[in-house]
Amino acid sequence: VLPPIDRLFSLIDFLGVGVGALGGALAAARDTRYRYDLVGVIGLALASALGGGITRDLILQQGPPLAFADVRYLLTALAGGLLGLLFSSQMFADRFGATHFGAGTERAIVVVDAAALGLFAVAGSTRALNAHLGVLPALLLGGVTAVGGGSIRDVLSGRTPKIFERGEFYAIAAAFGSAAFLACDMLHLNRSTSTLVGTLCGFALRMLSLRYHWRTRSIRVEQSS
Amino acid sequence: VLPPIDRLFSLIDFLGVGVGALGGALAAARDTRYRYDLVGVIGLALASALGGGITRDLILQQGPPLAFADVRYLLTALAGGLLGLLFSSQMFADRFGATHFGAGTERAIVVVDAAALGLFAVAGSTRALNAHLGVLPALLLGGVTAVGGGSIRDVLSGRTPKIFERGEFYAIAAAFGSAAFLACDMLHLNRSTSTLVGTLCGFALRMLSLRYHWRTRSIRVEQSS
Amino acid sequence: VLPPIDRLFSLIDFLGVGVGALGGALAAARDTRYRYDLVGVIGLALASALGGGITRDLILQQGPPLAFADVRYLLTALAGGLLGLLFSSQMFADRFGATHFGAGTERAIVVVDAAALGLFAVAGSTRALNAHLGVLPALLLGGVTAVGGGSIRDVLSGRTPKIFERGEFYAIAAAFGSAAFLACDMLHLNRSTSTLVGTLCGFALRMLSLRYHWRTRSIRVEQSS
Repeated sequence: VLPPIDRLFSLIDFLGVGVGALGGALAAARDTRYRYDLVGVIGLALASALGGGITRDLILQQGPPLAFADVRYLLTALAGGLLGLLFSSQMFADRFGATHFGAGTERAIVVVDAAALGLFAVAGSTRALNAHLGVLPALLLGGVTAVGGGSIRDVLSGRTPKIFERGEFYAIAAAFGSAAFLACDMLHLNRSTSTLVGTLCGFALRMLSLRYHWRTRSIRVEQSS
Repeated sequence: VLPPIDRLFSLIDFLGVGVGALGGALAAARDTRYRYDLVGVIGLALASALGGGITRDLILQQGPPLAFADVRYLLTALAGGLLGLLFSSQMFADRFGATHFGAGTERAIVVVDAAALGLFAVAGSTRALNAHLGVLPALLLGGVTAVGGGSIRDVLSGRTPKIFERGEFYAIAAAFGSAAFLACDMLHLNRSTSTLVGTLCGFALRMLSLRYHWRTRSIRVEQSS
Repeated sequence: VLPPIDRLFSLIDFLGVGVGALGGALAAARDTRYRYDLVGVIGLALASALGGGITRDLILQQGPPLAFADVRYLLTALAGGLLGLLFSSQMFADRFGATHFGAGTERAIVVVDAAALGLFAVAGSTRALNAHLGVLPALLLGGVTAVGGGSIRDVLSGRTPKIFERGEFYAIAAAFGSAAFLACDMLHLNRSTSTLVGTLCGFALRMLSLRYHWRTRSIRVEQSS
């Protein structure tokens, strides 16, 4: 039996995968050019939910990615994708007069997504440390784990990864959470405490950035001709 | 010496790689924006032919991908790519008054491609089972193997993977073939029989979908404003 | 202590990573659509500098990629990316009245990039031979190592890899350097000599192609309607 704190992390992990898949499916199903069929919606849902972890595991080379080795990840992602499909269906639209969630549901999705952002970043860094990588590679791998799924989804949708573009604080929140975790680990706090601190830091920065509409700016300098 | 059924599978495997490369080269050489040079045509041919198997082997992490470890795959893909280049050349156009194949050749390519679709899906699932993955991951990996090459080609050509878009039955045929194979395997049929059944199912569904012009539909719901 | 020739190779290796990152950062920071923020510029710098080697190491499956296992690569790439950021900043523009380098600096970057192109191709082939791959896969892997970073950067920027398009001699110079190295190796020259010959061949072909404005041509045939 897992201790309570690990059960909490496991819960956030799977909720994060499910919400990632739900978000990927909804984005595909709401595509304004009516491009995607069933395969597209489910495929983009799986890529969004599992792409970050798969990328992490391909880099660490410790056997097949967790998303393939532990079937619960794939089941959770499929469930999230099918839920997204259901909410986008004509039947749902007819019955509830809307193809969008209410404000409360949208808010819950944002909160879970922010918590998962923090946890995924910490999980990536944890696995990097376990594979004897240094602190800086562990920081990078934390970020890749947290933002990889969305970025793969973006590339498969024919666009530049959103995290590279000026706009929301997302990758920065992940890097911050990962850095907080690594700092705690270097101070020899135990893993559960470090994980909690890192996840909370990533989560808090993401939520604050949404609350106060923080935006990143373009690097490009206006040319004085 | 391989038994006859395994020699048939091996034949379809290499024919599939060659036809995949040919298709990739022709698509690149016929690009309406005149973008691709020699490197582009051969590169897109190799990506189309070998990308699915390479992705499968990267995920399974059992050593370098077969496409690098067994040189026959690379040679076959190169041959297919060079053939596509030859058929697209000015010399060929001058001599035969056309840069396209006759109807019979186009038909043969479609048949080989459909057979390879079925076999690649089964091969991906077989390797997944051999690596002790579960049935659901094996199904996903079968699909990835069958459609991965074309999808990588699409992304490298600056577009969304065609398999995600409404249109032809392709990924669904692969998934169906893979599922048929996995069902036979769970019924303890021997591997050759299971492979044959799975490949035939994928092949048949693909050919039927072309014959009867089955199309997948967009998931997007028309908004009643 | 490394012998002098190996120290030269190591120098070119790290200079190549740094210049790759610098080029990636500058391209992102000069984006005409003002798209990229800090994460985008540094992310595209890292992808440009390290993407080729990471792809090579993922294929070879001999443990985590060198870019993660040896922190000097990541530090060098970060330094190159930050330098690019600095040169693109308002402060720099105000102080020096320009956001571009002088002709001498631009020229030095081109020379280092060409040397790195040759060395990366040879390094990819060397590692492939060490992993007991054949000559043809080693040639392909040399090319992938040399052009992979730029190609990943291109895909992440929402465009087709430049190496596939008609234009500059780049992938061909890499393949030529790799082929020269492999030929020397088959003639049983020692590794340092083979590496030097291969790197020089790739470098020379790249510099000559720039000096004499050699261009690759589109494969597409004009249709005589």
